Amino acid sequence: MKVGNKHYRTIWMEGQEVQMIDQNLLPFSFEIKSFRTSEETCKAIERMTVRGAGAIGAAAGFAMAQAFAEGKDPETARARIRSTRPTARDLFFAVDSVFEAGKISVQSAVDEAQNLAEANVDAARKIGLFGDALIKDGARILTHCNAGWLGFVDYGSALSPIYTAHLNGKKIHVYADETRPRSQGARLTAWELANEGIDHKIVADNAGAYLMSKGMIDLIIVGADRIAANGDVANKIGTFEKAIVAKHFGVPFYVAAPLSTFDTETLEGSDIIIEERSTAEVHYQTGPDANGKMHTIRVTNPGSEAINPAFDVTPAELISGIITENGIIKPGNADFQY
Amino acid sequence: MKVGNKHYRTIWMEGQEVQMIDQNLLPFSFEIKSFRTSEETCKAIERMTVRGAGAIGAAAGFAMAQAFAEGKDPETARARIRSTRPTARDLFFAVDSVFEAGKISVQSAVDEAQNLAEANVDAARKIGLFGDALIKDGARILTHCNAGWLGFVDYGSALSPIYTAHLNGKKIHVYADETRPRSQGARLTAWELANEGIDHKIVADNAGAYLMSKGMIDLIIVGADRIAANGDVANKIGTFEKAIVAKHFGVPFYVAAPLSTFDTETLEGSDIIIEERSTAEVHYQTGPDANGKMHTIRVTNPGSEAINPAFDVTPAELISGIITENGIIKPGNADFQY
Repeated sequence: MKVGNKHYRTIWMEGQEVQMIDQNLLPFSFEIKSFRTSEETCKAIERMTVRGAGAIGAAAGFAMAQAFAEGKDPETARARIRSTRPTARDLFFAVDSVFEAGKISVQSAVDEAQNLAEANVDAARKIGLFGDALIKDGARILTHCNAGWLGFVDYGSALSPIYTAHLNGKKIHVYADETRPRSQGARLTAWELANEGIDHKIVADNAGAYLMSKGMIDLIIVGADRIAANGDVANKIGTFEKAIVAKHFGVPFYVAAPLSTFDTETLEGSDIIIEERSTAEVHYQTGPDANGKMHTIRVTNPGSEAINPAFDVTPAELISGIITENGIIKPGNADFQY
Repeated sequence: MKVGNKHYRTIWMEGQEVQMIDQNLLPFSFEIKSFRTSEETCKAIERMTVRGAGAIGAAAGFAMAQAFAEGKDPETARARIRSTRPTARDLFFAVDSVFEAGKISVQSAVDEAQNLAEANVDAARKIGLFGDALIKDGARILTHCNAGWLGFVDYGSALSPIYTAHLNGKKIHVYADETRPRSQGARLTAWELANEGIDHKIVADNAGAYLMSKGMIDLIIVGADRIAANGDVANKIGTFEKAIVAKHFGVPFYVAAPLSTFDTETLEGSDIIIEERSTAEVHYQTGPDANGKMHTIRVTNPGSEAINPAFDVTPAELISGIITENGIIKPGNADFQY
């Protein structure tokens, strides 16, 4: 998608070097970083230089390919890559695919990683086409966290239908949940939407019920980190809360995710391990002062502790449908298959 | 309540000077500020040096008494004080009471303002006694925003039962919602609880449904800015969302407020005007860096706009009961009278 007027992808591999937009610096500065080894790429995943289910999947695939190219023990490398982020289904999917391909040759591993990245772009584009059908001209759409192109290789999941609707000339307005504690909505989703020229407003996560009670939201679309066999969806903390509130007000609540996010081995959402991230994410925020100088400041009472569950699991019955590259499916219905 | 080991009130008047704990500096520094004129006190209300329904009420009463002492036109002064915060019922109640008393003499106005502050302390203390009955030993309680003693003259509303339970030797744990955008939970509620030595954790507002789904919350208690005649409750943005989520999980959801918060002239919640505050509250955060130097930083995408509704209205049917100084009442029940 566009940054200024130039097209970028979130992540790509040139030779053995993985290139990424550094998402920890966004939206305040735009930099491409290079990671030359599998271990460097693993650290980039851990530090959230790259984040979002699809982009993490691509990064993990590239990291596995780098490991083969470096002649590392594949089993050890796979375990290392899998340890970077415990919740993301796409990560396991990608690393296992490249692991299998690497049994043939290093080049097969690299090709498989590149193919996975291309497949991610293609799936996201198709999610946009299917999801666009849900968006009426004039629609006001709420989204949570960032399931935009920065969370994928390109296009995104939840934002892909929004981009498609905008390209098709529909006048839409997007409310971007701030998405504390990491504020991916206020920082990344808002940055993406601004670069694409789409009308939007940032709202505190607390404003959801208010907006819906005033009839200001026609549709909610969010992404997914992992979808269990029964259709339960693990996604950014706060997604579950929005789904409950949406049901209360009868607002359609859609999840957008490629089929690689489905985990048939996880029977239901309660089986998904929720990542507890550092409480520093709750206590500190980083951003520029009026002179553009970056600071990390404490935003909570010094001495108080916090908890920081990074994800929650939204039960299938709260979800109107899941927008995939093969069409929109409804968990619990007879046609729920993938 | 305690700061260090000394007892303080949030706001008091000595002679014609209004003294307040500067809540904009908390929790990073503790300072008492003096306001010598009615206009200075009005500006303190607008700048949120003092905030919270009960404390604003006391401030408004003191400001009206100051206006009489200064020989200002009472009608003009009253209108000015009423204009400082449009949502707070206690403000109107206090300013009108002191306005009436001032028709007798300046001393009557001052006495009435002092009496209102004392009545606020007494009501808050009684709310603690009635609310304590709802709290079992070992209870895990979620609260939103700050309806503690900083929001009153002393004790608080939502936190008063928690302080009473703690004083009575019950082992309790409090989850304090961060409460974006102004973070009163992470800053003020956490600061109060730390000073009182009560176990607590700060959580992102997004974590509510997660905590309740895991059975980690036994009870929710929040405050109120205004309660309509039908029991609908205007309170800090996000309260409505928590109430919906609490109902979904069957978690008891209580509001604590003195009777002065009830507005019989407002028939239902939809009649309450919701204050839209500056979007700067969403875009910027202020706090100390690692060296204790304060900075105001941008936390959202520069160039993106925001909306900032400060309150929402929770319908009476989502509220388990309202804890008042006269006991616990249930909106919608035959015994709902005040």
